[in-house]
Amino acid sequence: MEKDLIYEGKAKKIFRTEDDQVYLQEFKDDATAFNGVKKDKIPHKGEFNNFISSEIFIHLKKNGIPNHFLGKISDTEMLVRKVNIIKIEVVCRNIASGSLVKKFGFKEGERLGKPIVEYYLKSDELGDPLFTEDHIYSLGLADSHELSTIKKMTLMINEILIKFFADKRIVLVDFKLEFGKDKFGNIILADEISPDTCRLWDSETNKTLDKDRFRFDMGEVEEAYREIKNRLTAE
Amino acid sequence: MEKDLIYEGKAKKIFRTEDDQVYLQEFKDDATAFNGVKKDKIPHKGEFNNFISSEIFIHLKKNGIPNHFLGKISDTEMLVRKVNIIKIEVVCRNIASGSLVKKFGFKEGERLGKPIVEYYLKSDELGDPLFTEDHIYSLGLADSHELSTIKKMTLMINEILIKFFADKRIVLVDFKLEFGKDKFGNIILADEISPDTCRLWDSETNKTLDKDRFRFDMGEVEEAYREIKNRLTAE
Repeated sequence: MEKDLIYEGKAKKIFRTEDDQVYLQEFKDDATAFNGVKKDKIPHKGEFNNFISSEIFIHLKKNGIPNHFLGKISDTEMLVRKVNIIKIEVVCRNIASGSLVKKFGFKEGERLGKPIVEYYLKSDELGDPLFTEDHIYSLGLADSHELSTIKKMTLMINEILIKFFADKRIVLVDFKLEFGKDKFGNIILADEISPDTCRLWDSETNKTLDKDRFRFDMGEVEEAYREIKNRLTAE
Repeated sequence: MEKDLIYEGKAKKIFRTEDDQVYLQEFKDDATAFNGVKKDKIPHKGEFNNFISSEIFIHLKKNGIPNHFLGKISDTEMLVRKVNIIKIEVVCRNIASGSLVKKFGFKEGERLGKPIVEYYLKSDELGDPLFTEDHIYSLGLADSHELSTIKKMTLMINEILIKFFADKRIVLVDFKLEFGKDKFGNIILADEISPDTCRLWDSETNKTLDKDRFRFDMGEVEEAYREIKNRLTAE
C-alpha cells in the first residue's frame, strides 16, 4: 500500500489509500502538552493507543454509535472512513479536573451532578480556546441541528464508556471527541479515544492512568498506557 | 443620608441607605482595564456614566425591561433597588471586536448575522473567564429557567438599545450586562450601562466613543464619554 501523507497532527498521521473513501490512520509515539510547549516521545504509545482506540471504536459501533473505524491493520495503524473533520473539540466531563479546576474554581475530584459538555475551537494558532454554541453558529462550523446531534452523541458515548471502563475498574473522568461529516453529510465519530484524549483513574486508588502523567511529570507514563491496554485485553 | 459602604468595585461604590430595600450607587472616575493591570482616572467619568446609565435605565423601564434604577440623586449618584447580583457577566455582540477577534479569529468590524450572547464568570481572582450554560448550572449560579430569562432579556435590551443609540448616530457594537434577583426571586437588570461597559462607535466615522480609547491609549478618553453624554442630552 502506497503511503500518501495527507495530514500530520501531534499524535497521528493520516494517509490516503487506494480507496478514496478510506484513510489510513497511524498512531505516533510523540506526545505533546500545553499546546505543543512540552514535547517528548512515550515508547510504544502509538501501539497502545491504536489498540485502545480500536477496542473502543468496536465497542461503540456495537452500541450503535456511528464512527470512522474500519479495522486495525497493524500495531500502529487502523483504516478509517474518510470524513471532513468538524473544527470543534468536544469535551465531556463527569468529574472536575484540569481546566475546570484551574479556570472556574471547581474542586479537583468533585463529581458533577450532570456531565458537562464543552466545545473548543480546533485551532493550534489560536490555542484551542473554549467557545460556545453562538460562536460555532457565527463561525459557520456547524448548524444547530448538527450541534444538537453532536451533543446527543457525546452524552450517549459518555454513558456507554462510563460502563465500559467501570467493568475494567477505571473511572472515566473526562474525554475529548472529534466528529466528522461523511459524503452524505452524516455526523460520525472520528479521531481517537485513548489515554491521550481521556482522563482515566483507577477506581480503587484514583491513580492517574492517562496523559496527565506526562503533562505533570508524574512518572510511569508508558506503564499507565500499558495498564489501560492490559485491562482492555483482560476479558 | 449616612453613607455606609457595602461594596467597592473598580468603577462604583455601593452604600446602604435608611431603606433596607434601597442602595445608593456612586460612580467613580477610576478606570481599569485588562483585569486591573491598567489603572488611571478619567476626569468626570463618574458624572458622565451616572448620567448615561440613568438615561438608559429610564428608557429601558419605559420599554418594559425591569431594572434596579430608582432615581438619579446627584451628579455621581443614583438610588437603586437592592438585588443579589448573579455572578455572571452577560455580553451581547452585534459586531465583531475585542476578544471575538483576538481569541476566535473573527474579523474586526464584521457584522454578525445574529447577536452573540456570551457568559463570563464574575470573578476577579479567576480573571472573569468565558464559560458556558453547563458550567453555570454546575456551579449553581443560575438554573435553566433563570438563564433563559437572562438571555431573553439581554436580546430584548439589545433590540431596544440598538435603536436608542442609532437615533443618536451611534452604533452599539457590544455591551456587558449584570443581573440580580430581588426579594421575590425576580430577575432584574442591575449594574450600569455606559461607555465603560459598551463598545460604541460613531455611525458615520466609526470613531470609538468608549473605554477602548482608555484600554488602547487612543487619547481623547474624557472627550469620548462627554460626547456620548451630549448625544443623549441633545433631544
